[in-house]
Amino acid sequence: MQCKHAAHMDKIQPFRVMQLLAEARKLEAEGRSIIHMEVGEPDFDTPQPIIEAGIQALKEGRTHYTPATGEMALRQAISDYYRQQLHIDIAVERILITPGASGALQLVLSVLINPGEQVVMADPGYPCNRNFVYLLGGEPVTVDVSAQTHFQINADLLPDVWTEQCRALLLASPSNPTGTIIARKDMQAMIAYAHDHDAVVIVDEIYQGLCYQQPVYSALELSDDIFVINSFSKYFGMTGWRLGWVVAPEGYVGDLDKLAQNLYLAASTPAQVAAISAFNVETVQILQQRVEIYRQRRDYLIPELEALGFKVPIIPDGAFYIYADCSALTDDSLDFCQQVLHQAGVAITPGLDFGDNHPQKYIRFAYTTDLDSLKEGVRRLRTFIAG
Amino acid sequence: MQCKHAAHMDKIQPFRVMQLLAEARKLEAEGRSIIHMEVGEPDFDTPQPIIEAGIQALKEGRTHYTPATGEMALRQAISDYYRQQLHIDIAVERILITPGASGALQLVLSVLINPGEQVVMADPGYPCNRNFVYLLGGEPVTVDVSAQTHFQINADLLPDVWTEQCRALLLASPSNPTGTIIARKDMQAMIAYAHDHDAVVIVDEIYQGLCYQQPVYSALELSDDIFVINSFSKYFGMTGWRLGWVVAPEGYVGDLDKLAQNLYLAASTPAQVAAISAFNVETVQILQQRVEIYRQRRDYLIPELEALGFKVPIIPDGAFYIYADCSALTDDSLDFCQQVLHQAGVAITPGLDFGDNHPQKYIRFAYTTDLDSLKEGVRRLRTFIAG
Repeated sequence: MQCKHAAHMDKIQPFRVMQLLAEARKLEAEGRSIIHMEVGEPDFDTPQPIIEAGIQALKEGRTHYTPATGEMALRQAISDYYRQQLHIDIAVERILITPGASGALQLVLSVLINPGEQVVMADPGYPCNRNFVYLLGGEPVTVDVSAQTHFQINADLLPDVWTEQCRALLLASPSNPTGTIIARKDMQAMIAYAHDHDAVVIVDEIYQGLCYQQPVYSALELSDDIFVINSFSKYFGMTGWRLGWVVAPEGYVGDLDKLAQNLYLAASTPAQVAAISAFNVETVQILQQRVEIYRQRRDYLIPELEALGFKVPIIPDGAFYIYADCSALTDDSLDFCQQVLHQAGVAITPGLDFGDNHPQKYIRFAYTTDLDSLKEGVRRLRTFIAG
Repeated sequence: MQCKHAAHMDKIQPFRVMQLLAEARKLEAEGRSIIHMEVGEPDFDTPQPIIEAGIQALKEGRTHYTPATGEMALRQAISDYYRQQLHIDIAVERILITPGASGALQLVLSVLINPGEQVVMADPGYPCNRNFVYLLGGEPVTVDVSAQTHFQINADLLPDVWTEQCRALLLASPSNPTGTIIARKDMQAMIAYAHDHDAVVIVDEIYQGLCYQQPVYSALELSDDIFVINSFSKYFGMTGWRLGWVVAPEGYVGDLDKLAQNLYLAASTPAQVAAISAFNVETVQILQQRVEIYRQRRDYLIPELEALGFKVPIIPDGAFYIYADCSALTDDSLDFCQQVLHQAGVAITPGLDFGDNHPQKYIRFAYTTDLDSLKEGVRRLRTFIAG
């Protein structure tokens, strides 16, 4: 049989980071030591109180389907979190539990986007965003962002790219790969612009808890008429559990529920029951300690990278990434990353994974490994660059 | 803000069964007793060995991402299952772990279907099938099946509906809602027909373990060039864990992997680790006892329903459903189900959930509740019908 895939598959690029990870694992299997600074996943395990709640859920036989909108006690806990931590009133009915932020993003875009419609997003940005739009026959419209714009879109950049077909503006704060946060006034101006142009705003806040500037804010402070996507993966350390949520404008909840029933029926039940404990005092304490550790790693790594010849024009406000300009060291970041992996035993991600905006000039460093490993990584990079 | 959803949302019908379930829960909250014969979910909890393996996985911190294709030990266990139980050699590389069969179905269709292309499927059938095709801008082509065709498509029915746009033939054996199995020779003839017409075959085998005719067979016996979707939900009693798998032709694995990385990253890690124990001798023993219990329920229910005036022209071979003809009792199965729920306290699903092929003449009974409850349900129906 001849294999023939749908045309949109040609637009979907494989993640270089997965290829690099596979190569790194192969080298490790051959006995090589590899420092992992490519992985977008916390090195910490799930906090113990969540683990224990998961074990309890299994012991109690919480293994049947929940409603498509999610376990009510978890939706309530998220609503409480918004009220108590961020001082925002979000009705439980507007909170839907999803299988990861991926599930949330796909759900929201699938409810909104017709073939031919456009979704505006930053470049560099999370690569799956574009691909979800392609799958729906829509068209991603990217806005090139740079250190000059704090690596984020702002309202002044929108008129240049905006067309009648723009249906949604997809923002991420903090962003992957740049870790920058959208300032409140910029967020407000963009929401106003989109609403004036009959478009919806979707804000990816999956790195919200991982912020080094306090207090954290949510775009939900500014409007009830936006979609906000969040996740238990990054801040809460629950990647493998596959759990996220979306806060939606009230009028869209019925559609989201209907489509969720079809797309995935419901998120994992043991994960949902366990995640209720993600908001416990004890868990929050563990999580805040981890934020402090990430901050220390960031603060170690930035000056070291600059000493090596990388440029870090913007200190990232959150997430666990540094998007470093490598143009003083190479004019081909993909080739550089390959060489660094094979010759120096350090795995890092080339800009190509995050878009078409001068990707050859950038490399993403993830500080999802301990300080000693970061130090060893820096030593190896220094030797490699000294050549 | 005015809510405006994508046009495909209008084609996606909400499940009546979810509405009925919500009404049933409301009645129960008011103190009414309801017999549940509407739910497509085993009443049994996950078998204890799987629960214990899940607890162990959490204790060991198995909470990080697996590769998008899944945990290798689980893929190996599934390959072993095919070899040992069904005497089919399936290379581990062709087995991908998915978040439920929903994830598998969406993944496979998304890799295959271009806008405007058609997917042939039976009516009545699982309602989500059509909706996944709509989301991709494709067109479901339904083949009306009836007791005369064992409630399944066969190769003789294909030429009447087949067009140049037909890209895939989607079969289910055993089927939801009818529980019937496709005979080997019919399966073989349909695979040949599809391949002759440059189309792929996708076989939903999620009720495979729940068969009352032994030995069970898989369509994979007949061809390596088909997609087979399976699930840990129904036979293995793991609905809430959200775990399934797909066996794909070798040439499609790369595309499936690439798209899975985008759609959902990976299936739940604790679920994957736990599911390895689904193939233990001890678990299989528990599961086979459950099959025997389902069989007893089926064998009790069919003559009772016939005595009440329903017609069950085909004894279902598998799954836990009876698709009963109610035309001697009502000419509107939806209205009948509503009345039965509110007046008799029995929840059953109208044909409307499964397609457009004379749905008013059919009701799906799920025997996912214990024998005593089924007996009480029958008593209540008898009183209602005597009315």
